[in-house]
Amino acid sequence: MVNIPDAWYNILADLDFALPPDVQPDLPAGDRAGGIDPQVPLSLVRQEMSREPWVPIPAEVRERYAQWRDTPLRRATNLERALGTRSRIYFKYEGGNLTGSHKLNTAVAQAYYYRKAGATRLAVATGAGQWGTAVAAACQMFGLECHVYMVRSSMTGKPYRRTMMELLGAQVTASPSDRTGVGRRFLAAGDHGGTLSVALAEAVEETRTPGTRFCAGSGETYSLLHQTVIGLEARAQLAERDVWPDVVVAGLGAGSNFGGLAFPFLGSALRGERAVRCLSVEPAACPKLTRGRYAYDYTDSSERTALQKMYTLGHRFTPPAMHAGGLRYHATAKVVSALYDRGLIEAAAYQQREIFSSATLFTRCEGIVPAPESAHAVHGAVVEAARADERGEPATILFALSGHGIFDMGAYRSYLDGEIADDIVPDAAIAASLAHLPTQPVSSDV
Amino acid sequence: MVNIPDAWYNILADLDFALPPDVQPDLPAGDRAGGIDPQVPLSLVRQEMSREPWVPIPAEVRERYAQWRDTPLRRATNLERALGTRSRIYFKYEGGNLTGSHKLNTAVAQAYYYRKAGATRLAVATGAGQWGTAVAAACQMFGLECHVYMVRSSMTGKPYRRTMMELLGAQVTASPSDRTGVGRRFLAAGDHGGTLSVALAEAVEETRTPGTRFCAGSGETYSLLHQTVIGLEARAQLAERDVWPDVVVAGLGAGSNFGGLAFPFLGSALRGERAVRCLSVEPAACPKLTRGRYAYDYTDSSERTALQKMYTLGHRFTPPAMHAGGLRYHATAKVVSALYDRGLIEAAAYQQREIFSSATLFTRCEGIVPAPESAHAVHGAVVEAARADERGEPATILFALSGHGIFDMGAYRSYLDGEIADDIVPDAAIAASLAHLPTQPVSSDV
Repeated sequence: MVNIPDAWYNILADLDFALPPDVQPDLPAGDRAGGIDPQVPLSLVRQEMSREPWVPIPAEVRERYAQWRDTPLRRATNLERALGTRSRIYFKYEGGNLTGSHKLNTAVAQAYYYRKAGATRLAVATGAGQWGTAVAAACQMFGLECHVYMVRSSMTGKPYRRTMMELLGAQVTASPSDRTGVGRRFLAAGDHGGTLSVALAEAVEETRTPGTRFCAGSGETYSLLHQTVIGLEARAQLAERDVWPDVVVAGLGAGSNFGGLAFPFLGSALRGERAVRCLSVEPAACPKLTRGRYAYDYTDSSERTALQKMYTLGHRFTPPAMHAGGLRYHATAKVVSALYDRGLIEAAAYQQREIFSSATLFTRCEGIVPAPESAHAVHGAVVEAARADERGEPATILFALSGHGIFDMGAYRSYLDGEIADDIVPDAAIAASLAHLPTQPVSSDV
Repeated sequence: MVNIPDAWYNILADLDFALPPDVQPDLPAGDRAGGIDPQVPLSLVRQEMSREPWVPIPAEVRERYAQWRDTPLRRATNLERALGTRSRIYFKYEGGNLTGSHKLNTAVAQAYYYRKAGATRLAVATGAGQWGTAVAAACQMFGLECHVYMVRSSMTGKPYRRTMMELLGAQVTASPSDRTGVGRRFLAAGDHGGTLSVALAEAVEETRTPGTRFCAGSGETYSLLHQTVIGLEARAQLAERDVWPDVVVAGLGAGSNFGGLAFPFLGSALRGERAVRCLSVEPAACPKLTRGRYAYDYTDSSERTALQKMYTLGHRFTPPAMHAGGLRYHATAKVVSALYDRGLIEAAAYQQREIFSSATLFTRCEGIVPAPESAHAVHGAVVEAARADERGEPATILFALSGHGIFDMGAYRSYLDGEIADDIVPDAAIAASLAHLPTQPVSSDV
């Protein structure tokens, strides 16, 4: 395991400012969902708050990482040739594990910490199934039971995802279900298709069962921390080739993929060691950094969570239909938001058609089909290469290929058939959503 | 590329006997399909005949191999723990490329040689789509056009495979089609669902188009040669850990997966360097080695091909329904057959239910879902470990995990639902099929 880092990197240690604290919404106390869920193990709460630069990766977690890590760092020479660029394009590929994406990095860590804190069972919610699959795999590793509430319409449309989770020993329940009060209410109201929001509420309700904890993980600061294993590996792999990137590019949803690759590089820059640009790429259909507002907002549509200061399109924002389901979140992680607010990272938004065009070229050149989410980074890298060439200063580009798209042939089919439409969000839609931002917070949570 | 071999290993060099020559069937000359197809490039014909121990891998092919090789060699420590075995179980994983299996190793080599021989376009036939995807990817690499005839019933049932091939730039036609005489005959007769046999005939007919060649590749001696990159890497990776296997286990279809992993080890044994057992695992539903006959037979059901001496169940044999479609071939490669006939390799046949049971345990332990074909090797390794423990002599076992099964959730679903049946072939069915073996060949092809 010499090539797997022995500690995660905590970017908070290299910031000369503190993150704005979470605050309680202006609600009667009984209606509040709390800041950091009190059920979250203390070990994870400490990671969320820590300013120590390095958090040791437990030996049991590293041992499991070794099932698929270190992951490949490759140069896309065929893509470079096809583009005719003089820039160098590298990518870090996280799709080579069972669950097909980077999400397993934090799922394994979380399952470990929950187990250590005495949990015997994790309840999670999943839409298309990626997070559910990752947690199911992680629970299997540490002898935890796993109960997944899967949005019923997804379960019908993607039955293989359910099978995969069951193969990994998880119990899978279609949501809304009659197992929970929330579920029964929605069923009684005639809603059988479900949404992620309902599935989340059911999984949270499930924690009334002794030993059961709810587990979520893509925008929390500790999720970003766990994902830095990606960037740390990439930095070491590039160093072996005497390479340092001019720009690091990653798709941006809730933030863990972007933070995972970019933070270790950005940390070097913040410490004044080496300069680097960090570019996040978001869909034009969900442009939280490029067109959102830096403000306190709810983290989900229940309007019961603590408020976090984030770049947000408003918690009621509904993006147009798009294939990169993982990038539909209305906001992004508070760490990423703070960095963007201070000009320490960059953001770009692109449209689906151009993104799939770059992804298709990449597939033909490099033999990996990018997930639609990851395709954003592919396109970002392609654009960066072209701009560098135009400037007459070929660049060294590193991007995050966070997952494979072999389960996304439907999206590629639409692209090949010319059926992918423009997806620019009208200004009015964003303004309408931002009008529902909560009013000034009343109390600090810290 | 230091870890990718620079030459393939040719086991013919270490045999103290010659393979029985192919012979022409007892047909009017105009009806014969020929021995080695005259369209096959001379470079491949030479590889088929060579007795040189090493065949250099062209630099262009190695460069493409580097897109996904070397492939992981891992110890299945969690599986060992779950089994409670004192044996050590290693596996070599070939599923980490776009096409999801080892087939790309020979597709890349063949595309290279066909291109060098002046072909501009390859026509291939595919059932479920694996071989078509591999050749499509390989054609894309070397600037060849690719035309895939895909069995229509598969194309309807597995639309994502078609999309994948088109994404790789291939033209995909449902077979039977109206593009060929053969296809039109079947369509006129009311057969629209198709079979691999018809698709093969259409692809062969397509070679009347100038520049177009037909390309097949799983049982040819040169395919087995190209696959030895697997075993050569595995041998080097084990040597780094000071490990030599007592037994090498691989699933057996037409032979290229088994030969690819086993031959480099077997070669060492044949040269008297280190002892090793090589165990092939076949489905009880298609038991060509364990219950077939070593005899001259046609290589497909057209009864027009040259005759090869192989272990065969008869070219009219139809195995019961099973999930490992890649292991349904009625016979196996002539090299593998000759080795078995001389007692140089071993064979075992297992049933689907026990195979899926081992594969499910493996998934939960090691985080990779085996393809149903590869699951045969998983089960073979599990049985070998148990036997070694019983003997009180823990063994070191290496098996071939030739591909992933994430497209095979339907098969696993059946297993989880207890719907996988026994699949022992009755003696009478084999006897009936063997009764149709061709009569004594009349002339040598060599």
